[in-house]
Amino acid sequence: MHIEVICTGDEVLTGKIVNSNFSYISQKLEDFGLGVKWGATVGDDRDDLLDAFQRAGQRADVVVVNGGLGPTVDDLSQEVAARAAGVKLELHEGWLEHMKAYFAGRGRTMPDNNTKQAMLPEGAEVLDNPIGTACGFAVTIGKARFYFTPGVPRELHRMLELEIIPRVLEKAGSQSVIRLKRFHSFGIGESHADALLTGLEAMVPDGTLKLGFRAHYPQLETKLTVRGATEEEIQTKLGPVVAEVRQRIGNFILAEDDETLEGVVLSLLGERGATVAIAETYTGGQAAARLAPLPGAEAVFTRGMVARRLGELYGALEMDGAAPPEDAPLAPEVAEAVAEAARRQAGADVGLAVLVALGDESQHPNIQSTICIGVSTGSEVASRRSRLVGNRDWIRLGAVEMGLDSLRRFLKGLPIKEKIDFERAAPN
Amino acid sequence: MHIEVICTGDEVLTGKIVNSNFSYISQKLEDFGLGVKWGATVGDDRDDLLDAFQRAGQRADVVVVNGGLGPTVDDLSQEVAARAAGVKLELHEGWLEHMKAYFAGRGRTMPDNNTKQAMLPEGAEVLDNPIGTACGFAVTIGKARFYFTPGVPRELHRMLELEIIPRVLEKAGSQSVIRLKRFHSFGIGESHADALLTGLEAMVPDGTLKLGFRAHYPQLETKLTVRGATEEEIQTKLGPVVAEVRQRIGNFILAEDDETLEGVVLSLLGERGATVAIAETYTGGQAAARLAPLPGAEAVFTRGMVARRLGELYGALEMDGAAPPEDAPLAPEVAEAVAEAARRQAGADVGLAVLVALGDESQHPNIQSTICIGVSTGSEVASRRSRLVGNRDWIRLGAVEMGLDSLRRFLKGLPIKEKIDFERAAPN
Repeated sequence: MHIEVICTGDEVLTGKIVNSNFSYISQKLEDFGLGVKWGATVGDDRDDLLDAFQRAGQRADVVVVNGGLGPTVDDLSQEVAARAAGVKLELHEGWLEHMKAYFAGRGRTMPDNNTKQAMLPEGAEVLDNPIGTACGFAVTIGKARFYFTPGVPRELHRMLELEIIPRVLEKAGSQSVIRLKRFHSFGIGESHADALLTGLEAMVPDGTLKLGFRAHYPQLETKLTVRGATEEEIQTKLGPVVAEVRQRIGNFILAEDDETLEGVVLSLLGERGATVAIAETYTGGQAAARLAPLPGAEAVFTRGMVARRLGELYGALEMDGAAPPEDAPLAPEVAEAVAEAARRQAGADVGLAVLVALGDESQHPNIQSTICIGVSTGSEVASRRSRLVGNRDWIRLGAVEMGLDSLRRFLKGLPIKEKIDFERAAPN
Repeated sequence: MHIEVICTGDEVLTGKIVNSNFSYISQKLEDFGLGVKWGATVGDDRDDLLDAFQRAGQRADVVVVNGGLGPTVDDLSQEVAARAAGVKLELHEGWLEHMKAYFAGRGRTMPDNNTKQAMLPEGAEVLDNPIGTACGFAVTIGKARFYFTPGVPRELHRMLELEIIPRVLEKAGSQSVIRLKRFHSFGIGESHADALLTGLEAMVPDGTLKLGFRAHYPQLETKLTVRGATEEEIQTKLGPVVAEVRQRIGNFILAEDDETLEGVVLSLLGERGATVAIAETYTGGQAAARLAPLPGAEAVFTRGMVARRLGELYGALEMDGAAPPEDAPLAPEVAEAVAEAARRQAGADVGLAVLVALGDESQHPNIQSTICIGVSTGSEVASRRSRLVGNRDWIRLGAVEMGLDSLRRFLKGLPIKEKIDFERAAPN
């Protein structure tokens, strides 16, 4: 099946906004085994839009168009779609009612110019958008079925998943149920994960299991899509495969599906009714910033202490003895002591320390760094040391992730020290 | 002049990476008055690339192609460019030497497969890339001049600015010098800035001044491009316009050109040899995280203290008296007291407090918030209170920006309290 995506709008064409809708659409279709063949970006211009629609209509089976469904004069998608399909625009009474109800629900009267959003090409099929006023629709242009979607990301996401993908799968003659299962890990590179999961697709012999990855440092997302005739069939196929992935990637899996690392850490702390204090150096507050603002964190996150120098942290945490000299190699025991001091000072149940010693910063983007993570509950401590080489952001992101992941591992009773792929051999 | 951009590569087409190169290219060309007419995204596929090149060659004057210049088998840009231009590939000895020197400089021998990167279409013009092994080049396909660029962002950025834009401007018969001047502000919306700068373009009567904006919350970027025959002419034209912008947008301008807010704050503190301590609640360490990791911050940033609850902050900072109850309206005086306590405890010269009281979180994405910012030097204090309504991220980003901007204003002797466009009326 030949699928194309057309993104419209001057803001996208001129680069005023980065076109993340395109990558979203393409990834989402890919998740369902629907590969995109061609992408086009055009401005709010009648001739260019018509040209783009006609070209795509000549060669594609399915075209997803994004943007141009708004109420203003530069929103041209319905008008040009009608022209390309050779039909007139007509008022869709149902959508007009929907919009009036939408505004009424917000205590407002619908402005007149929104009426334009209910003008659809004759014979168009409506794609529902319960969370906005832009009406999605499908029409046939040339030999392709076109699906028109709103530019607002959350409206697009919902419409793509609930309205469009099922129609495209049906058109593709695909089996009716598809499930996407995702695993998030830290410390395993894409090629390593691929090697670890060798033979996984063969566990479902009818070829309906597809394995994919998306690396976004510091995390890797491992994706499984499975198709089947029924939900039961999917579950039967997926069960052993999910168990196998959990077993092979093991402790490196930090969250699944819509979970996040910080969300998992918050839940683990919440489950044992524990509070946490965090002390960090070079990460400058980014570890705390992942956890502290979450809904529910007010009962769990007590304090974060940030310093740029280790000596400052010793002073702030009222630690016994002097801090090691700035040029001394960073030791895991120091991270344990800092974690314990942070915990004790805040009166928290658990302390986490994320300490970074940067090497020669003039070597950017190949700065050497030593990262020491410490966790303490007062009665129990754990720590790890590792080395990352990269630019400032790379080191900072890696250290924050390693800190939160170490806390997750500690709370789950897993070893916090396990070699990761990004790591260089740690100095003694 | 009709300009098109073609982005190549499976990673971009499948959405595995968000295509920020496209928006970069388009914005940068726009900055020089060169509007992009059409964008295409194609995978690593010979037929699709050929089709894309030929279509663009039929209608465009200038085409910028991004990606596909690497050493691996799926990098096809040179090969397909040669085919589309109807010429052979030939080894470019000069580039081969460049690559060998590049590897030698890193103590390595060039792998054989990199030779492929020196195979260019016959007659191609080389576009220099001193920071990588991918050779940019220009060829004519159909009626268009094609410029091929590497996918690595920093290599692309350099090549576009130094090699391509001057050639395109010359081709456009444009005057030879162009200057881009940028102002970054916080608190002024795009339409407000546009209104404030009414008549600005007319200050340069020959029409060579262009005004543009790019809003990326919480900041707004105001851009001026000026053309002229010589650098002197540019300066003569630009001088009064820059002064006018500074006067009209005034205190809201927080940085210019490549400066950042955090960089400006760091410099202002450095100039007076002052150190700073930061205390924050809901922003969870994000204010500290903007400042602490900067090169040079180790001499300026002392401590950051993060808590989710105000009471916790009072305890951590050993403040006199009890914290106001959680449900009491947040007062600017509280932020002043917290700023002073953070300063005193850390032994710093300046204290900054960024406090946020969130309203009903179930109202997401329309949560009401009160933000109080305090600055103290011990002898002098200042504060502001304002209200933002939005989702969690919106409030957090706004509060961090307001905190750092208030510190900038304070250090520059400007009023820290000035109504911003994002703000709702603050409750009493």
